[in-house]
Amino acid sequence: MLGRIVRIIEVFGPDTPALGVSELARRADLHVATASRLVERLVGYGWLQRDADRKVRIGVRLWELASRASPTLPLREAAMPYLEDLHAVVRHHTQLAVLDGDEVLFLERLSARHAVINLTRIAGRLPLHASSSGEVLLAHAPAELQERVLSGPLPAYTRFTVTDPKVLRARLADIRRDGYALCPGYIDERATGVAVPVRGPGGAVVAALGVVVPNDDNARATIPALRATALGIARSLTQ
Amino acid sequence: MLGRIVRIIEVFGPDTPALGVSELARRADLHVATASRLVERLVGYGWLQRDADRKVRIGVRLWELASRASPTLPLREAAMPYLEDLHAVVRHHTQLAVLDGDEVLFLERLSARHAVINLTRIAGRLPLHASSSGEVLLAHAPAELQERVLSGPLPAYTRFTVTDPKVLRARLADIRRDGYALCPGYIDERATGVAVPVRGPGGAVVAALGVVVPNDDNARATIPALRATALGIARSLTQ
Repeated sequence: MLGRIVRIIEVFGPDTPALGVSELARRADLHVATASRLVERLVGYGWLQRDADRKVRIGVRLWELASRASPTLPLREAAMPYLEDLHAVVRHHTQLAVLDGDEVLFLERLSARHAVINLTRIAGRLPLHASSSGEVLLAHAPAELQERVLSGPLPAYTRFTVTDPKVLRARLADIRRDGYALCPGYIDERATGVAVPVRGPGGAVVAALGVVVPNDDNARATIPALRATALGIARSLTQ
Repeated sequence: MLGRIVRIIEVFGPDTPALGVSELARRADLHVATASRLVERLVGYGWLQRDADRKVRIGVRLWELASRASPTLPLREAAMPYLEDLHAVVRHHTQLAVLDGDEVLFLERLSARHAVINLTRIAGRLPLHASSSGEVLLAHAPAELQERVLSGPLPAYTRFTVTDPKVLRARLADIRRDGYALCPGYIDERATGVAVPVRGPGGAVVAALGVVVPNDDNARATIPALRATALGIARSLTQ
């Protein structure tokens, strides 16, 4: 039963926010009758809700329950004023991400209107090797995770994505030494990701702070602002 | 089974983000063995997670699932750049809220460091009669909801909270006419809430945009900025 509920909830995503019950059943690999019965009960608890056209989507109540006690909320709350300040200065996508499993999970993104293309989304994921936030988190991750990523497939998004494990290993050392990751065109040739580590009270890296800016010579100029902002967040986390 | 899972997830909140299993069982009104077994399975799916001290909290995965397809995400994404602009001008708490059931649910809050006291939280709720966002949403709510709130208890937070249904009814008419709600000291005597409606593509009120500022003569001066920002959000929602 729990497994079926998980499968139903997992079907919804940014590209499929609303589904009819038969399509939902197909994607969750459930009989329509089973899906229909479970959807009915989930709607009763507010975990799913029905649109006027009878399509089903995630319920506001589930968002509320997951958000009000989210383990990421304290970090997000501490970082937000600094993220805004950085965004006001850089005027491009500004984002906060954490390591989750073998991927980078984006907790927050502030975007300017008409900013450069950016594949990240709030509550969206990217692989660790392809994004600046991911590289920063990987550079400071346990050795076993680094080895797993280095020995696994490193798919290319563009011709600039680092797909050679030797190059990636050297980059991780550079990122630890230099304190930032600069990824021109790794995910989209028009954009450069720049990210720095955010340290928690014990000094461990707890998040990555990043910007996505146009892929040109100005990208590097964001590094000082990123570093200063990350220090501000760390100070706020330590208080 | 689903009912038990809902009870477990509902136990967690901003004041109880992490609980031991026996405390969790007590609050969810379940046998410890039952709670323990369900917690184990929820941890397996990432819907709950265990701290180093074995306490249980909401899992990052549940936050991710609920957030990436949240019905409130399009509104939140459209409003966020405007919310930031308003926050940069007003330099006090700036927030976006929707009507959910008989309460106001806050989707987003931007806060300045050292700003005035503010009881609202992201994914937090307040009663409709006591907050400026709530009054705005109530003023534009279906008549049956208005009548239910007006005939129900109107608890006081301070000596300034409106607790007389006749006064509240007249205020709702004023808010519809004037286009804003100004609530000096309703929730905390030191703070004033000011809110305006945000309209969706069809012209219906879909959210409330508000600020919480010090309770003094300057509070009223935020109204033009609030109204301009709400029009910007509405324009963005219509595009």
